Amino acid sequence: MEHKILYDLFQQVSEGTLSPDVALKKVQAESYSDLGFVKIDHARQQRMGFPEVVYAENKTIEQLEAICHAHLKIHERLLLTRLSEEKYLQLKAKELKGRYNVMAQTLSFAPDSQKRVGNILILCAGTSDLPVAEEAKETAEIMGNEVKLVSDVGVAGLHRLLDQLESVRQAKVIIVVAGMEGALASVVGGLAQVPVIAVPTSIGYGVSLHGVAALLSMLSSCAPGVTVVNIDNGFGAAFTASLINNPVIAK
Amino acid sequence: MEHKILYDLFQQVSEGTLSPDVALKKVQAESYSDLGFVKIDHARQQRMGFPEVVYAENKTIEQLEAICHAHLKIHERLLLTRLSEEKYLQLKAKELKGRYNVMAQTLSFAPDSQKRVGNILILCAGTSDLPVAEEAKETAEIMGNEVKLVSDVGVAGLHRLLDQLESVRQAKVIIVVAGMEGALASVVGGLAQVPVIAVPTSIGYGVSLHGVAALLSMLSSCAPGVTVVNIDNGFGAAFTASLINNPVIAK
Amino acid sequence: MEHKILYDLFQQVSEGTLSPDVALKKVQAESYSDLGFVKIDHARQQRMGFPEVVYAENKTIEQLEAICHAHLKIHERLLLTRLSEEKYLQLKAKELKGRYNVMAQTLSFAPDSQKRVGNILILCAGTSDLPVAEEAKETAEIMGNEVKLVSDVGVAGLHRLLDQLESVRQAKVIIVVAGMEGALASVVGGLAQVPVIAVPTSIGYGVSLHGVAALLSMLSSCAPGVTVVNIDNGFGAAFTASLINNPVIAK
Amino acid sequence: MEHKILYDLFQQVSEGTLSPDVALKKVQAESYSDLGFVKIDHARQQRMGFPEVVYAENKTIEQLEAICHAHLKIHERLLLTRLSEEKYLQLKAKELKGRYNVMAQTLSFAPDSQKRVGNILILCAGTSDLPVAEEAKETAEIMGNEVKLVSDVGVAGLHRLLDQLESVRQAKVIIVVAGMEGALASVVGGLAQVPVIAVPTSIGYGVSLHGVAALLSMLSSCAPGVTVVNIDNGFGAAFTASLINNPVIAK
Amino acid sequence: MEHKILYDLFQQVSEGTLSPDVALKKVQAESYSDLGFVKIDHARQQRMGFPEVVYAENKTIEQLEAICHAHLKIHERLLLTRLSEEKYLQLKAKELKGRYNVMAQTLSFAPDSQKRVGNILILCAGTSDLPVAEEAKETAEIMGNEVKLVSDVGVAGLHRLLDQLESVRQAKVIIVVAGMEGALASVVGGLAQVPVIAVPTSIGYGVSLHGVAALLSMLSSCAPGVTVVNIDNGFGAAFTASLINNPVIAK
Amino acid sequence: MEHKILYDLFQQVSEGTLSPDVALKKVQAESYSDLGFVKIDHARQQRMGFPEVVYAENKTIEQLEAICHAHLKIHERLLLTRLSEEKYLQLKAKELKGRYNVMAQTLSFAPDSQKRVGNILILCAGTSDLPVAEEAKETAEIMGNEVKLVSDVGVAGLHRLLDQLESVRQAKVIIVVAGMEGALASVVGGLAQVPVIAVPTSIGYGVSLHGVAALLSMLSSCAPGVTVVNIDNGFGAAFTASLINNPVIAK
Amino acid sequence: MEHKILYDLFQQVSEGTLSPDVALKKVQAESYSDLGFVKIDHARQQRMGFPEVVYAENKTIEQLEAICHAHLKIHERLLLTRLSEEKYLQLKAKELKGRYNVMAQTLSFAPDSQKRVGNILILCAGTSDLPVAEEAKETAEIMGNEVKLVSDVGVAGLHRLLDQLESVRQAKVIIVVAGMEGALASVVGGLAQVPVIAVPTSIGYGVSLHGVAALLSMLSSCAPGVTVVNIDNGFGAAFTASLINNPVIAK
Amino acid sequence: MEHKILYDLFQQVSEGTLSPDVALKKVQAESYSDLGFVKIDHARQQRMGFPEVVYAENKTIEQLEAICHAHLKIHERLLLTRLSEEKYLQLKAKELKGRYNVMAQTLSFAPDSQKRVGNILILCAGTSDLPVAEEAKETAEIMGNEVKLVSDVGVAGLHRLLDQLESVRQAKVIIVVAGMEGALASVVGGLAQVPVIAVPTSIGYGVSLHGVAALLSMLSSCAPGVTVVNIDNGFGAAFTASLINNPVIAK
Repeated sequence: MEHKILYDLFQQVSEGTLSPDVALKKVQAESYSDLGFVKIDHARQQRMGFPEVVYAENKTIEQLEAICHAHLKIHERLLLTRLSEEKYLQLKAKELKGRYNVMAQTLSFAPDSQKRVGNILILCAGTSDLPVAEEAKETAEIMGNEVKLVSDVGVAGLHRLLDQLESVRQAKVIIVVAGMEGALASVVGGLAQVPVIAVPTSIGYGVSLHGVAALLSMLSSCAPGVTVVNIDNGFGAAFTASLINNPVIAK
Repeated sequence: MEHKILYDLFQQVSEGTLSPDVALKKVQAESYSDLGFVKIDHARQQRMGFPEVVYAENKTIEQLEAICHAHLKIHERLLLTRLSEEKYLQLKAKELKGRYNVMAQTLSFAPDSQKRVGNILILCAGTSDLPVAEEAKETAEIMGNEVKLVSDVGVAGLHRLLDQLESVRQAKVIIVVAGMEGALASVVGGLAQVPVIAVPTSIGYGVSLHGVAALLSMLSSCAPGVTVVNIDNGFGAAFTASLINNPVIAK
Repeated sequence: MEHKILYDLFQQVSEGTLSPDVALKKVQAESYSDLGFVKIDHARQQRMGFPEVVYAENKTIEQLEAICHAHLKIHERLLLTRLSEEKYLQLKAKELKGRYNVMAQTLSFAPDSQKRVGNILILCAGTSDLPVAEEAKETAEIMGNEVKLVSDVGVAGLHRLLDQLESVRQAKVIIVVAGMEGALASVVGGLAQVPVIAVPTSIGYGVSLHGVAALLSMLSSCAPGVTVVNIDNGFGAAFTASLINNPVIAK
Repeated sequence: MEHKILYDLFQQVSEGTLSPDVALKKVQAESYSDLGFVKIDHARQQRMGFPEVVYAENKTIEQLEAICHAHLKIHERLLLTRLSEEKYLQLKAKELKGRYNVMAQTLSFAPDSQKRVGNILILCAGTSDLPVAEEAKETAEIMGNEVKLVSDVGVAGLHRLLDQLESVRQAKVIIVVAGMEGALASVVGGLAQVPVIAVPTSIGYGVSLHGVAALLSMLSSCAPGVTVVNIDNGFGAAFTASLINNPVIAK
Repeated sequence: MEHKILYDLFQQVSEGTLSPDVALKKVQAESYSDLGFVKIDHARQQRMGFPEVVYAENKTIEQLEAICHAHLKIHERLLLTRLSEEKYLQLKAKELKGRYNVMAQTLSFAPDSQKRVGNILILCAGTSDLPVAEEAKETAEIMGNEVKLVSDVGVAGLHRLLDQLESVRQAKVIIVVAGMEGALASVVGGLAQVPVIAVPTSIGYGVSLHGVAALLSMLSSCAPGVTVVNIDNGFGAAFTASLINNPVIAK
Repeated sequence: MEHKILYDLFQQVSEGTLSPDVALKKVQAESYSDLGFVKIDHARQQRMGFPEVVYAENKTIEQLEAICHAHLKIHERLLLTRLSEEKYLQLKAKELKGRYNVMAQTLSFAPDSQKRVGNILILCAGTSDLPVAEEAKETAEIMGNEVKLVSDVGVAGLHRLLDQLESVRQAKVIIVVAGMEGALASVVGGLAQVPVIAVPTSIGYGVSLHGVAALLSMLSSCAPGVTVVNIDNGFGAAFTASLINNPVIAK
Repeated sequence: MEHKILYDLFQQVSEGTLSPDVALKKVQAESYSDLGFVKIDHARQQRMGFPEVVYAENKTIEQLEAICHAHLKIHERLLLTRLSEEKYLQLKAKELKGRYNVMAQTLSFAPDSQKRVGNILILCAGTSDLPVAEEAKETAEIMGNEVKLVSDVGVAGLHRLLDQLESVRQAKVIIVVAGMEGALASVVGGLAQVPVIAVPTSIGYGVSLHGVAALLSMLSSCAPGVTVVNIDNGFGAAFTASLINNPVIAK
Repeated sequence: MEHKILYDLFQQVSEGTLSPDVALKKVQAESYSDLGFVKIDHARQQRMGFPEVVYAENKTIEQLEAICHAHLKIHERLLLTRLSEEKYLQLKAKELKGRYNVMAQTLSFAPDSQKRVGNILILCAGTSDLPVAEEAKETAEIMGNEVKLVSDVGVAGLHRLLDQLESVRQAKVIIVVAGMEGALASVVGGLAQVPVIAVPTSIGYGVSLHGVAALLSMLSSCAPGVTVVNIDNGFGAAFTASLINNPVIAK
């Protein structure tokens, strides 16, 4: 909470137009609700245009259920990532029936009529990288972005990528998902005129080192305009892409 | 060169409105000039809105001189990064008199009247990180962006950062420059509502590992909306920030 | 055994007030009992105020049973860490019925009326880090410390942490448990006026590298007053916190 | 700034005993002075009992001079670390005449009559580790701690260490400084009954990896009660040791 | 597609001997067929003499089935690598009945009468390395090469290797498959007069680091004429060996 | 085969006391028998005093069975390491009934009356390190060495180690088995007057990095007289210890 | 020396057509001359078609002078790599006047009229990678290969590379020299129909890790037909390329 | 000091044949002399047969001078390692005139008539590895061992090594010094019948990683009987070799 807002509150309190108690509540209003083991950050929706996303991997069913209910009381949209099919079925049995994408391992709660704007292009190097690309797609879509996902355009068959140049030119932001050596990010970075967000994946073996080779490659890219997120972090790439693509809608 | 453009050329050649020779020249026109050791990419200006930036670190004075002259024949703006003061003085003696920023190690050639638009905020964790932040500032400014640089707002004294919340709220994109543990990126990522581009710096000692600790920290950030570039890559961060900030001006 | 004590023994033997046999026994008295595969260190209780803690992970049920019985013959308090629920149930079936904390994976034997003093604050960044925080809590409590554990105060929602400043100010020592980028340690280190012990956790994916990113981040912290223990070592952090919090009680 | 203090201010403003302007100044009073490139954190003295320590390594003489003057206007004690002898001589020529310790690479400004309390023991494994141990000693002393430094007690000649058991028993906190394999921390951790702060040093060659071997060794220590700081971070170890040793004096 | 071919097409279109539509199809003819999740690269057969090899590890049975059918419609030879026996049995049940090598984890479709030429020698250090060597053998044979595989010639019993010198001298190219310290590559490199392709395997434990020790060893080899592929990449080694052994047949 | 022996053969052939065929057979006699997938090195027995030891981890039951039979036809002693209990039971069912040590994961075939000489001391830091220490013990014993194994003498309770000084002084060679930080090797190295062979184990968590911390620590040891083998390589340590302990018996 | 040759010698000795002494000399004839500190391997010329190349980096002028003279007495061609200009000038002063290439850091001794055959293409990603590419060119040329070197065809400006497709198609073997992310190797590997030898260079900063990023990228390449040599090892790449290009001439 | 000796002292004191003061002095007699910054370990000579070796790298001239004088007052033999020529000349000017070996960077003080026994073979892979091999030779010789050093027997020219088989067979212990991929250790380990101590050197470039590749290779060696010391640690290898070679003389 910055000093300017605080100063306004002080002023109103000083002028008697605001009681100290209400002033403090206003401070807390940009806040969260506390479930004990977790504090759900309601300010995130206000600040970022989308409520806190739930990373399901290390959470128990009981925790997930409590979090979902607390969220859905306040927000109409909600996204869970890294949710195994087994956990999804348990949640589903408890009447938490969002849209589950088994490849992306995501569960989405959203109103049916959500409008999508802008143009995010997701380029996916290989078939094996699709789960990460799908996570990015689910994330970007629930945040209100129009998304195009093109698969299997790795650099070993360059003509497959070159056939997508029209899509590259039309996109407002591009997400490149690639494992192994991650060279696709550099090549797309050299062709695109918009921000490229590179997602290294853990696909590969040996010196791929579970995505580290692709990560280093993408960070060392000789093409400017490429920024990078953590290995397999399709969600994070899509979140930033959404901030770039449609600032008005996203908030 | 995508097939659609190619098809148009085929059509024009077929209709006789274009000779084969001219068609090929058109293909090459989106191209480069070849100095032997280097091929200057003129297409970059057209595609990205700014000509190829010259990374000076491993180039000889003779190479730099030739590259500068070839560039400046065609473009009015030019940026050299990682140019030591010693090399700068040698170039200056050869009548290559741009604006040299000794902290940023950059040399800029630009028309005096360049207009700057938008709002890029650069937050710099410590005094020692300033060279990287300055490289980012020089890059963003020559590309036509309005830039605000705030120094010494590392998380060890959180109140210094919290006093900048107004600037954080007004920015269209934020660059965070931090060494050591790079925690500033996560904290800013949690406060901002725009894309945050994190630049780890090589500042620190011991397990900072020349910037690797900050890099891993930034990539693992628990705050969404943060993407990362290579260690000390102020230029790269600013390039992407420029693509986000003012697409119209930048092209 | 230092020379001063030895000299006293020599003196007493010389004066005839101590027989050589008793003198040697006195030397051995600060000692251990030998079960063959394990030597239980009784001197630890005398020296550190708490008997040797049993790390259960690589031990068989037979070994654990023997160790517990040998311990409990002499000491009334005993702590086992990294004890899986499966092993716990096997021990329980053999009448070793302490208090088992399934999240912490600890088994505690302690008198009911144990008094707790001082004020150790445990700040836990995310829900997924709770097992490590719980191990720290169990350890600190059985060693006689008053403990407050606050969960889900990661830096991505800074206001959640800032609401805990009163607790931060009252603590005599603070344990910060955080995975991913571990930035919480630096932020707390910048706010606290007491020693902060940082515990990186293995929570995260990709470049989190099973806790290495958080570890490097915490060790590189720009905030003074932060020391670090091994990844997931909630026990070790609590042990040192106990030494700081209540030296009188702990011995 | 926590909500409780804020609420008090709101109350006072509401009661008319405080004007909004003064209220805001009070908020800022826990603050810093801004030199542009650096923001000196005056709150640190109030919070931690000692003003912000200046890490001199990457700062220019001009920056150091400005920082020293700004500090010394307000505080009577000041510590600079990692200050080369060359830089020290330049500062000295500008009338900044503190006490320079060439081995520790520290410059201290402190009143002559500073009282020292408590008992911090610094155990240094080898002669080559002395610079780091000296940095710790200088830091602890300027913060008001009584310090004993014992050199060359590495585990290869265990009897040298065992002769220091009396000192080990009397210390309130122990700092262990060791390079190579850092085994001294584990051995001291097994002998001491107070917190042990381990400082790995970059001394060694080959797989010592500039201190990484000692760091990993210390973090993996089988002895409880050992916490660790960054490689060569004598300052950080002493800062925490001071917080443990004499909380009253240090604030 | 290089400019020269393009120019020829332009010329033919200009001369009216080629319609623009046919010209574009000719461009696309060196192309691929798009199954949505995968784009099968038919140009590979034309360019490399062998169709795209299918890496089966992260693909579902449905994906593999679709890919196999699409391939086998066009090409008579097809190779799948990293195909588990379980997946193989599922494919077999769907009438995809190639030759399965359970040790190599490969499935091959090839005409019975395929001729093999040249002389590729595969030297395998230990019995445990055989799966990788077998993958290389299967790959080289389906590409039309004569292959000799010799097992268990690690350097710990040098006389076993020295008995193979006649084979070494006759080979046109040698593949060395070795785990642990990978010394066999250097020794063979010092004895051979043809290119040696080294394949580190993930066999070993401890500092073998899943093949990294062998990889570093092979890349650092003091013997010239040795090039290296990824850990366990028997396929890649054989592919290059085939390019060297019989360029005429392979295309 | 060195030139001197070769020259003798040439001489004998020249003098007609040896036929060329027999000469060549003599060359091959120091050789091996070839089972196809494996070449059993009979020269090892002659050269090293013990036949090739079988590393069972990646071998199938069929391979192990064939190897055992081939060995036992020629040698009366045989050692298999890293043999899981499951595999052992399968071998046992095929009448391969040696002595199986489930903790060491070894299977030994040896004459009942084997004499043991010399004095190898194995010091094992913790209970969890026992499997590696047992592998060392089994190896040393089958090679004819007298072995004493002392467990749980880690440095955290130094008095437990100091009680073993008599054993340390009597040993002809010492094997130190330790995980975590591996400090025991340095301390023993500082106390012993005979070669110390250090075996890091993969016991530990977090920065123990599966034994790498202990390995680096042991290699960086400040105590001379310490050499190191691979992580968990109890066999290798015992093999060298045997070469040192009783050269006469071992050959 | 294989058994077959040995058997022939035995036969001749047996038949009296060869004396034992001459037989042994014949064995040694495939040998080396011993200068004490170095044993010059004359067999290399016979086996590989080119004498042992001298790696000059860690050798003194005296050693280099002795080695050069010993070589040049027997062979007319000789190559020194990693020879600094300073050392070259010292050798030159001692009448060792070969052709020095300052960028490649090589010194070549060769007859003027050496014929060059075949077609090796060297593709160099950036101007900064030229020294490594030049080392490769010098090596390949002195070994009798026709070489074409094309510079500055990194993937960030793909059209520059695509203009070289004709050269790619004509080459018998291709060397790709690239630093930073090394993506050029994958792209060329996807376009070429001949073996591609990838040389990562140490050019780059931050996560380039002195060439490790490029190395991992190249080894993980999704394009088959790519093998890799050590970082900056232009010599090694050219040596293998020569073995592939012209086996007849090279021997 | 073990309990048995202590008990004897207690007994003598009890019997009145020893005064308490003398008893304590006897305890301290196995001790050291304390120069403040360094404690010279006189017990080392008694225990190991050779006084503490001085590692000169990080010590000042003043420290070295004091240490040398303190040593030479008591012992007639003394070894300094890692002593630069510059420091040597300074010591020489202060009348400390031992034998300096500039390649080994060692300074030795020893009586002229020292007898050497046994047989240590040092095999050095390349000319560049000689400094480490020389350090080993100097160390072994001053400790009273007969040493044979053979240079340039790397595995790339195997015949050079095979000519040394007679020396291999005669040695009582072998030291292998090798950089780059360190394959020599495995090959020698496979040929020798005595302990092989492997010393990786920092010679090499790129993935040699300053000796790490050789180290990993040697530790992963498939040949039993090989133990390893730190990178470039010729001293440590020789110290252990001496313990193996001539226990009687060495003490």
